[in-house]
Amino acid sequence: MAPPVELTTRPPAIGWQLPAFYCPITPAIHPDAARLEQRAIAWVDAFGLYENETDRAWGIATHSTDFSCRLIPDGDEEKLLLFILWNHWAFALDDTVHDTGSVSATTARVVDFNSRVARCLETPGAALLGPGPLTTALDDLVTRTRAATTPVELRLVADGLRDWLFGAAWQSGNTERGIMPGLADYVAMRPSINGTRFSLAWSMLARGIEVPPEELYSDGVQALTDVAGFVVSCDNDLFSYAKEDDQEALEQNLVNVLAHERGCSPQEALADAVAVRDRTMGLFLRLREQLAASAGPELLRYLEALGHYIVGCVQWMNTAPRYASPRNRHPLPVPGATWGITWRDTPTDPSTDPLPVPAAAWWWQQLDG
Amino acid sequence: MAPPVELTTRPPAIGWQLPAFYCPITPAIHPDAARLEQRAIAWVDAFGLYENETDRAWGIATHSTDFSCRLIPDGDEEKLLLFILWNHWAFALDDTVHDTGSVSATTARVVDFNSRVARCLETPGAALLGPGPLTTALDDLVTRTRAATTPVELRLVADGLRDWLFGAAWQSGNTERGIMPGLADYVAMRPSINGTRFSLAWSMLARGIEVPPEELYSDGVQALTDVAGFVVSCDNDLFSYAKEDDQEALEQNLVNVLAHERGCSPQEALADAVAVRDRTMGLFLRLREQLAASAGPELLRYLEALGHYIVGCVQWMNTAPRYASPRNRHPLPVPGATWGITWRDTPTDPSTDPLPVPAAAWWWQQLDG
Repeated sequence: MAPPVELTTRPPAIGWQLPAFYCPITPAIHPDAARLEQRAIAWVDAFGLYENETDRAWGIATHSTDFSCRLIPDGDEEKLLLFILWNHWAFALDDTVHDTGSVSATTARVVDFNSRVARCLETPGAALLGPGPLTTALDDLVTRTRAATTPVELRLVADGLRDWLFGAAWQSGNTERGIMPGLADYVAMRPSINGTRFSLAWSMLARGIEVPPEELYSDGVQALTDVAGFVVSCDNDLFSYAKEDDQEALEQNLVNVLAHERGCSPQEALADAVAVRDRTMGLFLRLREQLAASAGPELLRYLEALGHYIVGCVQWMNTAPRYASPRNRHPLPVPGATWGITWRDTPTDPSTDPLPVPAAAWWWQQLDG
Repeated sequence: MAPPVELTTRPPAIGWQLPAFYCPITPAIHPDAARLEQRAIAWVDAFGLYENETDRAWGIATHSTDFSCRLIPDGDEEKLLLFILWNHWAFALDDTVHDTGSVSATTARVVDFNSRVARCLETPGAALLGPGPLTTALDDLVTRTRAATTPVELRLVADGLRDWLFGAAWQSGNTERGIMPGLADYVAMRPSINGTRFSLAWSMLARGIEVPPEELYSDGVQALTDVAGFVVSCDNDLFSYAKEDDQEALEQNLVNVLAHERGCSPQEALADAVAVRDRTMGLFLRLREQLAASAGPELLRYLEALGHYIVGCVQWMNTAPRYASPRNRHPLPVPGATWGITWRDTPTDPSTDPLPVPAAAWWWQQLDG
């Protein structure tokens, strides 16, 4: 079905030119991305993950391979492929079950579905989901994932999956109740909605990064992980703004959160949103440098992986047709579509003060002195 | 408010005499239970966890100290105390937010509350809950817990907390949608509803059990953990049957699950419920023995802890007024109330075959040969 004409010509409330991105991190991409994409699409087709050619085109337009190969620019190709497949599956789930913007996707149903997904990975053969391509594909992912991981690695993936589903359920609850969260709550929950820990679990796995648990779960590293996830989430909110601006419920994203809280228009909130994001990016860089000074070799690799996650996501969303030619405005993904973003060397907000919300205070408290 | 007269005199559908318990495990209890209970009640009072004397009496009637001291019969007294306080807090939450049996406790609200609780532990100072005694008490628990744990231990507690909240949300979703789960789903989800991993995290913590992660997260040990959690859950379902039989929505418990699935009365389903429980208990004993044969010293201690969990819960619920003099039938807890249970040396169902549901198949597959 073609999008309505009035939408195809209407610019999003924040415009088509995103503010320049402050992201002083060198990007990288896995050299085998092209071959991996062919393998991923063959899998998607073999499992019939998409109902028709149009859905399939939009599935490919997620550029799941590009995303994964930027997050994981080197490492084990088979594990990287598995992560790509999970992402295809997750996007299909996201668009059909989670983040539909429909208030009829009740939290009770989302929670039920999510719980079944989590337990399918944890209890192989549990057969908790009804028949269908999403189920068959998940069964394959579970079998492959369990075969490719040690118990500790599997646990990392399973916890990451649960964390993502946890965030999705919270978001659904707000949609159902007609609630636009405030910044304080949004900061605390947004990294989970983005699946931060799921992506990072795969990054560690595919690259063989084995951070000693006492380091990985230390306050500083956990806070930095949330900080990275929040920056990526802010960027995702900007790139997603257009594609979700026709939903039944106003989309929960940083711009709308700030506009709602401050009683201004999305366009007016945009600069504030970028300031929030840039201030958090500044913290990421400072805290990462501090942690690196006393990090062991594996933690150093993890700190680097967080950087790949941030810059990789910007690069990916800039040219993924999912974001650059949004489905609510285009009948099919536009090849070569791009946001044509620009970059800047300094943050729009150079303040080193904590964001003025309680959940962020703990992030800044990890800084020495 | 006094319970209605017709209820105070009505026996539960499964009667007042529970079938004999098959549980060939030696019970134990921490020697300082009496002193710990005094300290716990002082904390409950200091934080005003209960609104009035009646609620306070029922809070004490949970016998949270007895539960905790049977689960953890030795070990660090301060950590054990902290577990007791968490249990008081969790029971208060359970009775006011989660398992009220009211269909108006929508999943969206439960999920929102749960998400905030989880993040309060993970992000200290996040201030995600509104003012009130439950919040003040949680803040204290978070501060104490973070001070008393290493990063890895904290992670274990936080994951256990999330797992319990995950189960509670799934249960709420069923209540809201008027769904009585089938046995297949119930087996897969019930250990989480019971907070199995939260309790076991504290058992490890207080007793200083440090199982190497590759052992702890191995399939066999994870399956055995679920098996233990399911046995405890079945027992909880029997002891809880009376106290929840007046709720707006029919309570999700093993007896009602089987009665619904088989189209029979709860009384008729009771023997089947005990058979399901005993067959799982038999698996627990066999699988534990098998794992013990090749276990390192710390895993051996964990396997022993699982046994304390099972037998301790039966002993505890037998005499906790929460269960033995249910609030829907008694204006106040009855001192000295007991179910007066009996024991048996053999399972009612001696079959060693797997329960005929997919999620349980994986449990049985962990057995050699």
